[in-house]
Amino acid sequence: MRREAQKSPLREFSRSQKAGVYKAIYKRRDVRGHFLPAPVPDRLLRKLLDAAHHAGSVGFMQPWSFIVIRAEGVKQIVKGLFEQANKKAAEVFQGERKELYSRLKLEAILEAPVNLCVTCDPTRNGPHVLGRHTIRETDVYSTCCAIQNLWLTARAEGIGIGWVSVFDPDQLRSALRIPDHIIPVAYLCIGYVREFLAKPELETLGWLQRLPLDDLIFSDYWGQKSAT
Amino acid sequence: MRREAQKSPLREFSRSQKAGVYKAIYKRRDVRGHFLPAPVPDRLLRKLLDAAHHAGSVGFMQPWSFIVIRAEGVKQIVKGLFEQANKKAAEVFQGERKELYSRLKLEAILEAPVNLCVTCDPTRNGPHVLGRHTIRETDVYSTCCAIQNLWLTARAEGIGIGWVSVFDPDQLRSALRIPDHIIPVAYLCIGYVREFLAKPELETLGWLQRLPLDDLIFSDYWGQKSAT
Repeated sequence: MRREAQKSPLREFSRSQKAGVYKAIYKRRDVRGHFLPAPVPDRLLRKLLDAAHHAGSVGFMQPWSFIVIRAEGVKQIVKGLFEQANKKAAEVFQGERKELYSRLKLEAILEAPVNLCVTCDPTRNGPHVLGRHTIRETDVYSTCCAIQNLWLTARAEGIGIGWVSVFDPDQLRSALRIPDHIIPVAYLCIGYVREFLAKPELETLGWLQRLPLDDLIFSDYWGQKSAT
Repeated sequence: MRREAQKSPLREFSRSQKAGVYKAIYKRRDVRGHFLPAPVPDRLLRKLLDAAHHAGSVGFMQPWSFIVIRAEGVKQIVKGLFEQANKKAAEVFQGERKELYSRLKLEAILEAPVNLCVTCDPTRNGPHVLGRHTIRETDVYSTCCAIQNLWLTARAEGIGIGWVSVFDPDQLRSALRIPDHIIPVAYLCIGYVREFLAKPELETLGWLQRLPLDDLIFSDYWGQKSAT
């Protein structure tokens, strides 16, 4: 039986193809500080969006859309929204944290040649989505899986992505003329980069430490550790 | 400038490593019908979970945990919850759709050697998470990115994953002893598979069609098509 299982699907990926998948995952970074102004070719951007579009989605609803932003005027407006939201966000931190927060670069809206807003349309393909009856948020979950596809293929192509989440969603909707019922899930800064850091910046700066994987794994029930 | 951009980060992935990333994305399937009973080695499962753990997360909060379920008794209980929820979910479809729905295999809870519940703890690492001030759901978004990492590395290793979302979240929490404040984001069936289908099953069966990518891309604003 074990031999049976080890047949074709197991041999489908060469050693180096497998290595590519792990490499993209471990070397992916949330990029803010190292964008180059070099344009991202349309054909390549489309290739990345097509990879996103091939994520799985609940009931095959494919709820995502992509607003590709290259216009300087739009970027300026979005940058303004970030600054407004960030002023409020900074207020919750005190002392050393406040000081460190103020030094962090949290976006690259103007420097990145491409900005991308990834949205989720909960109404796509009708009111009854197969598999979404019990957990409504699965449409957004699918959209996030699509974003990860984009992030990983970008990394393999040497393109950096920085996910900016410091926005008031209603303001972002209004700036990008997004209808009220559509969820702006992610706002991404995209472009070629000078370098990818060896570790996440927040880890290097000591904002938080990487958690030990063992602390995150339970066996059969929440809180139960494996006997092994 | 363009030459500059084309330097090291661009040459980091070999042709075959790049191909591996795209291959995992395009050949990934939501598997329900082709699981083999062969056990998934602990070491390999841990490798997949470590890949999940290396997703980006808002403010580096790493909100995810993983409940690895192998106990037959727990699977039986979860299967019961699925059946209960699925009866209600099926009621919304009528006529041909109802008939097709009833023939779909929507889970593989008992057949898959490993079940995995991926959770999100919104309280992890304190109340103030960097970057989560304006969009609270970013912790769940991060968890979904981790799930996609797991799904893609599994595909590269010849392991299938089926995401089951037909559960009442409260019932699932109670069955797996998950505290009230923790969100059970995904329930996954995991194992070696006989085959990976060439296309998503819901596409092949005509439940829905793959949307044309062009319809999903806007330029600068929602609804605005690119001039090119």
